[in-house]
Amino acid sequence: MDNRRSVAVIGGGPGGYVAAIKAAQLGARVTLVEKGRLGGTCLNAGCIPTKILLHTAELYNQLRASKSLGLKVDNFEVDWKGLMERKEEVVNGLVKGVTGLMKANGIDVVEGTASFKSPGEIMVELPGGGNRSIETDAFIIATGSAPFIPPIEGTELEGVIGSTRALSLDQVPESMVIIGGGVIGVEFATIYSSLGCDVTVLEMMPRILPNMEEEMTEILKNSLAMRGVKVFNGARVTSIDGKGRGLMVHFELDGKNRTADAEKVLVAVGRKPFTEGLNLEAAGVKLVKGCVNVNDRMETNVGNIFAIGDCTGKNMLAHVASAQGEVAARNIMGQNTGMDYRTVPACVYTQPEMAGVGLTERQAREKGYDVKVGKFPLAASGKALIMNDTGGMVKIVADRRYDEVLGVHILGPRATDLIAEGALALRLEATLEEIATTIHAHPTVGEAVMEAALAADNAAVHIPNKKG
Amino acid sequence: MDNRRSVAVIGGGPGGYVAAIKAAQLGARVTLVEKGRLGGTCLNAGCIPTKILLHTAELYNQLRASKSLGLKVDNFEVDWKGLMERKEEVVNGLVKGVTGLMKANGIDVVEGTASFKSPGEIMVELPGGGNRSIETDAFIIATGSAPFIPPIEGTELEGVIGSTRALSLDQVPESMVIIGGGVIGVEFATIYSSLGCDVTVLEMMPRILPNMEEEMTEILKNSLAMRGVKVFNGARVTSIDGKGRGLMVHFELDGKNRTADAEKVLVAVGRKPFTEGLNLEAAGVKLVKGCVNVNDRMETNVGNIFAIGDCTGKNMLAHVASAQGEVAARNIMGQNTGMDYRTVPACVYTQPEMAGVGLTERQAREKGYDVKVGKFPLAASGKALIMNDTGGMVKIVADRRYDEVLGVHILGPRATDLIAEGALALRLEATLEEIATTIHAHPTVGEAVMEAALAADNAAVHIPNKKG
Repeated sequence: MDNRRSVAVIGGGPGGYVAAIKAAQLGARVTLVEKGRLGGTCLNAGCIPTKILLHTAELYNQLRASKSLGLKVDNFEVDWKGLMERKEEVVNGLVKGVTGLMKANGIDVVEGTASFKSPGEIMVELPGGGNRSIETDAFIIATGSAPFIPPIEGTELEGVIGSTRALSLDQVPESMVIIGGGVIGVEFATIYSSLGCDVTVLEMMPRILPNMEEEMTEILKNSLAMRGVKVFNGARVTSIDGKGRGLMVHFELDGKNRTADAEKVLVAVGRKPFTEGLNLEAAGVKLVKGCVNVNDRMETNVGNIFAIGDCTGKNMLAHVASAQGEVAARNIMGQNTGMDYRTVPACVYTQPEMAGVGLTERQAREKGYDVKVGKFPLAASGKALIMNDTGGMVKIVADRRYDEVLGVHILGPRATDLIAEGALALRLEATLEEIATTIHAHPTVGEAVMEAALAADNAAVHIPNKKG
Repeated sequence: MDNRRSVAVIGGGPGGYVAAIKAAQLGARVTLVEKGRLGGTCLNAGCIPTKILLHTAELYNQLRASKSLGLKVDNFEVDWKGLMERKEEVVNGLVKGVTGLMKANGIDVVEGTASFKSPGEIMVELPGGGNRSIETDAFIIATGSAPFIPPIEGTELEGVIGSTRALSLDQVPESMVIIGGGVIGVEFATIYSSLGCDVTVLEMMPRILPNMEEEMTEILKNSLAMRGVKVFNGARVTSIDGKGRGLMVHFELDGKNRTADAEKVLVAVGRKPFTEGLNLEAAGVKLVKGCVNVNDRMETNVGNIFAIGDCTGKNMLAHVASAQGEVAARNIMGQNTGMDYRTVPACVYTQPEMAGVGLTERQAREKGYDVKVGKFPLAASGKALIMNDTGGMVKIVADRRYDEVLGVHILGPRATDLIAEGALALRLEATLEEIATTIHAHPTVGEAVMEAALAADNAAVHIPNKKG
């Protein structure tokens, strides 16, 4: 007889499959229900495939600059079909990897669509017909999110696509209007503009990437512009119809009516929690504004039911879902732990890359801190110069009172990996001095983090400091 | 009248110029004496120019693999002359930058060769003839190092070169034997093998990169071999003469006499402290085994004389010299600080990159720690898969008693920048759990650091764990 605590996880994305593995490691008997492919949106239609395209786009841009790097390249072009094949291959390999992890951890994977019958039972509709009832000690809801389609006339037109379709086009379109200048919009702008597509980005807010450090988004906007991307901030799209190069997007800007036309229109205005068909009413689980309501222990309002990931409407990021999954699994298995969102890194895989963790300067001021800021431009970084990528900067936001680091923001090559130091600094409540006196290898882009910490005290080495 | 404390720095490399800036920032009147170009070996003939060549070599290798990344590239070749020009341009730009920093910090730069007259005075021989005497309150000796030429017959032959010459060859040689499999040897092997040269590396020790984490150097050796580099460990070179493809290197391996022939022979067996012509006797400064003897405050045996960088014979790394320079400047200016070598990162800019900080597994065991090790192979990293660079791994060495991290070792893309997280972890005496519970962004190579920390407790997510 199996005396293990039983857990059913609904959804096999980076929240759900990590929660399942953690629960199994901690001794649970785990069932994972997934209606599509393991890996969820992240692996199949999000983080991973976009980064595959971005990696090739980056190499393509390096080829463009290869002459200045001492390389002679005769002719080069994107092999879009080959790239699509690579994308499938890498994604399939990773899905297979997750499948293998399920097996290695003894997790029972059930293909099908789950809905609650009661707080203690779900019914899974199997793909071949028929149902399977699952009763367990605890449930973890990890059903993710779906693209949000704004109520704009014309989104149903052919050629108007979402991010999933944008990953699998037959060819690089000649032109594209992207509605939404958040992470998804800006990453697709990078992919397609790099590969020769004429891209226009329409962002409703006063700037792109509204949650990232303000002055860096300005620099990034300029670097997109240099690659030919037209970015309109404060642009409110009113409708789409079929004229111009195929599709015509109508928008208001500064009180005037404007248009932008293109072969394709990508709608990338965000995602919304997905709980359709779950029959949460039968379980008594409460939704708030469409999100499954959870506390920091990832508990819903129903004792044995937890929820994690995008469906909870917190930071909709794969690594947040995974961290929440670990927290849920631990709490189910008798540990007592909570999520701390203060140290969540946010990454944008543009060129240069952008990453941030903790508070931006504006957020820190709004929270009432006596803010101290250190900045270091990558134009003064030897490694950035070597990498031919000097447009970025590092900015550290600190609390003057205790010298504690509140936020680290990086725009530059390798930023998405460099931010790990910032996350650890926040996790350990590091001071500026502790970062500044950590020896950073030379020549690395990471030296700029040390320099930014020094700059906050007007003591950077490789830039002239303000006269004290 | 100028009441500031006066400091003269001898040598304008990454130790000397940083010390000069720091002393000036702290209020000193600073003179910097440099006989060659500002920036020293690092900037003019070391770290920087090698990384420039390595950056292009890396791109060249990516071009080789471009088909699998969805790019069609017709013909490509290295434009060696163009690459040499880029090298000059970047180096000159950085030298100009250092010159500007000297000016911005009010540092008096004197071109010439310094020698001590007494503990309180140096005489600088000026390039146009004539001398200038400098008496200051304190001196910082930062004269660096010079290549060590081993007592082997034939090193004087034409075609036998050192690392400086190897940076400025007229063309990519058809073949090269590299004597020495340390950082310099292995980086040049990477540069030239990538660009089509037939490279042989002869290392006297049982493995290349003897100070790096053992199992990673094995992987790196294999990846060099896959690029066609022949690596012989335990090879004792006995002589060089002129036969075969131009030069013939004779060596002993496993008690047998062997030979390797090539167009060029690069001698890269290490560097030795350089203090020639300094007339240290007049100052009473003590040398030990050719190194200027210093304590952790960077003080020599003579009260007002400090020494930093390669001439002290500690870790011969630019970032160590800079850190020592800061320590010396602070102590001269009345602060009280010491060098801590435990957190010095070491980087090798191979492909994949290698970096380490703190103790290797072997070093930790030799020091008597109850060692706990966590490993994560990059074959299980989504981002490494995307980057087509999955041969590496992350390895974390910890003390079982307090769970404290003792060393972090990374072989993989971006390793030289990722190691910053490891250095901060050591600086802040982080535990494995603190690294494991720091949210790492997805998809990044850095997630592997978190996974390695988890793996030490058999709790990694993306690899199957040993059955408990």
